[in-house]
Amino acid sequence: MSSNAVQIIAQQSRAASRELATVSASRRNLALAKMADALESVKQQVLEVNGLEIIKARDEGQTDAMVKRLTIDDKTFAYMLSRLKKVAQLPDPLNRILAGHSNPAGLRVYKKSVPLGVIGIIYESRPNVTSDAAGVCIKSGNAVILRGGSEALQTNAILTDAMVAGALAAGLPPHAIQIIRTPDREAVGELLQMDDYIDVLIPRGGKGLIERIAKGTRIPVIKHYDGICHLYIAADADPARALALAVNSKCQSVQVCNALETLLVDKQCAEQLLPPLQAAFSQHGIELRGCEQTQKLLTDISPATEDDWHTEYLAPILSLKIVDGIQQAIEHINHYGSGHTDGIVTQSLSLARQFEQQVDSASVMINASTRLSGGGDYGLGAVVGISTDKLHVRGPVGPDELTTYKWVAHGDGHLRD
Amino acid sequence: MSSNAVQIIAQQSRAASRELATVSASRRNLALAKMADALESVKQQVLEVNGLEIIKARDEGQTDAMVKRLTIDDKTFAYMLSRLKKVAQLPDPLNRILAGHSNPAGLRVYKKSVPLGVIGIIYESRPNVTSDAAGVCIKSGNAVILRGGSEALQTNAILTDAMVAGALAAGLPPHAIQIIRTPDREAVGELLQMDDYIDVLIPRGGKGLIERIAKGTRIPVIKHYDGICHLYIAADADPARALALAVNSKCQSVQVCNALETLLVDKQCAEQLLPPLQAAFSQHGIELRGCEQTQKLLTDISPATEDDWHTEYLAPILSLKIVDGIQQAIEHINHYGSGHTDGIVTQSLSLARQFEQQVDSASVMINASTRLSGGGDYGLGAVVGISTDKLHVRGPVGPDELTTYKWVAHGDGHLRD
Repeated sequence: MSSNAVQIIAQQSRAASRELATVSASRRNLALAKMADALESVKQQVLEVNGLEIIKARDEGQTDAMVKRLTIDDKTFAYMLSRLKKVAQLPDPLNRILAGHSNPAGLRVYKKSVPLGVIGIIYESRPNVTSDAAGVCIKSGNAVILRGGSEALQTNAILTDAMVAGALAAGLPPHAIQIIRTPDREAVGELLQMDDYIDVLIPRGGKGLIERIAKGTRIPVIKHYDGICHLYIAADADPARALALAVNSKCQSVQVCNALETLLVDKQCAEQLLPPLQAAFSQHGIELRGCEQTQKLLTDISPATEDDWHTEYLAPILSLKIVDGIQQAIEHINHYGSGHTDGIVTQSLSLARQFEQQVDSASVMINASTRLSGGGDYGLGAVVGISTDKLHVRGPVGPDELTTYKWVAHGDGHLRD
Repeated sequence: MSSNAVQIIAQQSRAASRELATVSASRRNLALAKMADALESVKQQVLEVNGLEIIKARDEGQTDAMVKRLTIDDKTFAYMLSRLKKVAQLPDPLNRILAGHSNPAGLRVYKKSVPLGVIGIIYESRPNVTSDAAGVCIKSGNAVILRGGSEALQTNAILTDAMVAGALAAGLPPHAIQIIRTPDREAVGELLQMDDYIDVLIPRGGKGLIERIAKGTRIPVIKHYDGICHLYIAADADPARALALAVNSKCQSVQVCNALETLLVDKQCAEQLLPPLQAAFSQHGIELRGCEQTQKLLTDISPATEDDWHTEYLAPILSLKIVDGIQQAIEHINHYGSGHTDGIVTQSLSLARQFEQQVDSASVMINASTRLSGGGDYGLGAVVGISTDKLHVRGPVGPDELTTYKWVAHGDGHLRD
């Protein structure tokens, strides 16, 4: 793909974004409905093409995990449509008045939410990102440039063509949704240079991809790094609840960013809780790595090293540390954690309050599984990622988070003295 | 200054930020009041030391503009105190509930504002930044590391010492406010490496300084670049009002980021308005540079080149272009502008609405001088800069803008299915 082609796409998106900024909420919601309808009508094609891409991926020796991510089945497809519809039902993220006042001279000032402009989404394998990202971007009045993984090129192309037709039928500008249709890697490099036309890039994939993109561009990047997630079982925790939350946080799915990686157990309940925890995790095939004190209480447990506390396993491994009270738990989390999702199990309001205030993370879970952090349970409809940045957006990136704002000042000939 | 010294400062700030995040609004406001009192009590010392630094700057051949920026007089000092007091009176930017819902399973979720953590402010000459930045950071529960210009080293040190004493007297943690007390440039380089401890850097100064900092660090930077500000005089504008707004926008002060740089005049009123505009600007010693059509209507005007439309003069020069309607004006602004502050003079609601919707700038002024964009008139109390970024903060950076948020989920043993 020539540099020129990527530049034309970027320029077209910029032009579309200017128009989109003035499209009413009802028309944007209509577009989301028509995008879902259009997807529905190409379902068979999508499943067929996806099936061929799955075969190709298997032939090329891709891992099972990767093939699973690539696969669209009936359930995935239904989920994709339901999310577009959910996003359509959300309140309009645009034109919200975020603040306002009249100055002493009568200048009326308000701060209102507006689209960011053009969003570039660079992602690997999962074709459901194609519809989620398009949905979230259209809802928030942004033009989107998609760049999916080469293994899902055809699947993504059909999905996009259908959504573009739906959006056009609702009267959105052409080029509101675009996808880069070439597998060659240079196209990404060219995209990174389009800082005149693209307002933000959101890479979804491994740490390597994100770092490469963040380093190679002047465009702001919303980053989704590690989820080194913790659960702290306080001294007063109900043992059965603590066990259930720890197991669910770790075992419901191990390859996801909000899965538990380190379990912190208060020393006051460690002796009682560690044996049943070990039994439960062993049933789920989870390898435990314990601190020195843990090793005194449990046999058959390998030692956790300093490295373990820094590690996002994304695998059936859990590090386990006995801590001397909530303060030590919070310090461990703020020191070793990645600020993604961290939880506490307690019956005490004051411990919950302290944990909520002092843990410096995007998501703080009180008596809830770490696996519940995310756009769905937070009511965002659909998301394009989970930010581990602190600036602009923290945690799930939904429609609200893809807005910026402008200040508008209405005067009546007001001058500065 | 050894690398170790900067690192210790950064670590101390991080520790202070953990404590600050839990300090009540009333205590933070008390600290701002005591900081103002403490400054008041060292006023004579400040003026004396500042006087010596002014003499030194003059001896070293610094420009008048620079000496002016460096100077604290009675009026500046009173203004510094008044801004600390104004910031204290603002609503608390922390613990605002920004969104929330209960999911179908009864998980209660809310998104609440919290401090960013540690803010580094790197600035040149103006010592009033010292108190403004400390005030805005303390109000928003952030620890701040100040690094002022070498020419104001002693002035900044006295100001900081007084504010630290005031903050301590109110019970804030030590190290909530710190300043780097060495003129050597390496200290800045070391500060840029402290991404483990500093959450955001805000450089205030020339474009060179900002670019150097943004390139040299992994810490997110809130940038304050050019203000290539426009005023569009629509065909229906009241001539006297248009004249007054154009003159005030350009002439009230020329060396500031929200001063007018390009005046766009609708072709329908150009013939009537250009001669009085030329006369008025000539009275104020402003050099005009006009487009081709302008040159047909005015004699004695130099031509504007393509470069002029891209230039922030910060000087008594104004470029002038005749445009064919509002659409062309908006396109010119979105193409050549820097997204800082752009205004329209009109009597038409529909033109005002179109301008407000389609101009992609941090501040859009309707019948108001571009010079009115900023924290003061927007009700922010004090600011630490004006962002030309679109992410996180756009326009004036006050206490609200130095917050991020966390998601808190309260469950009752909620698990993921």
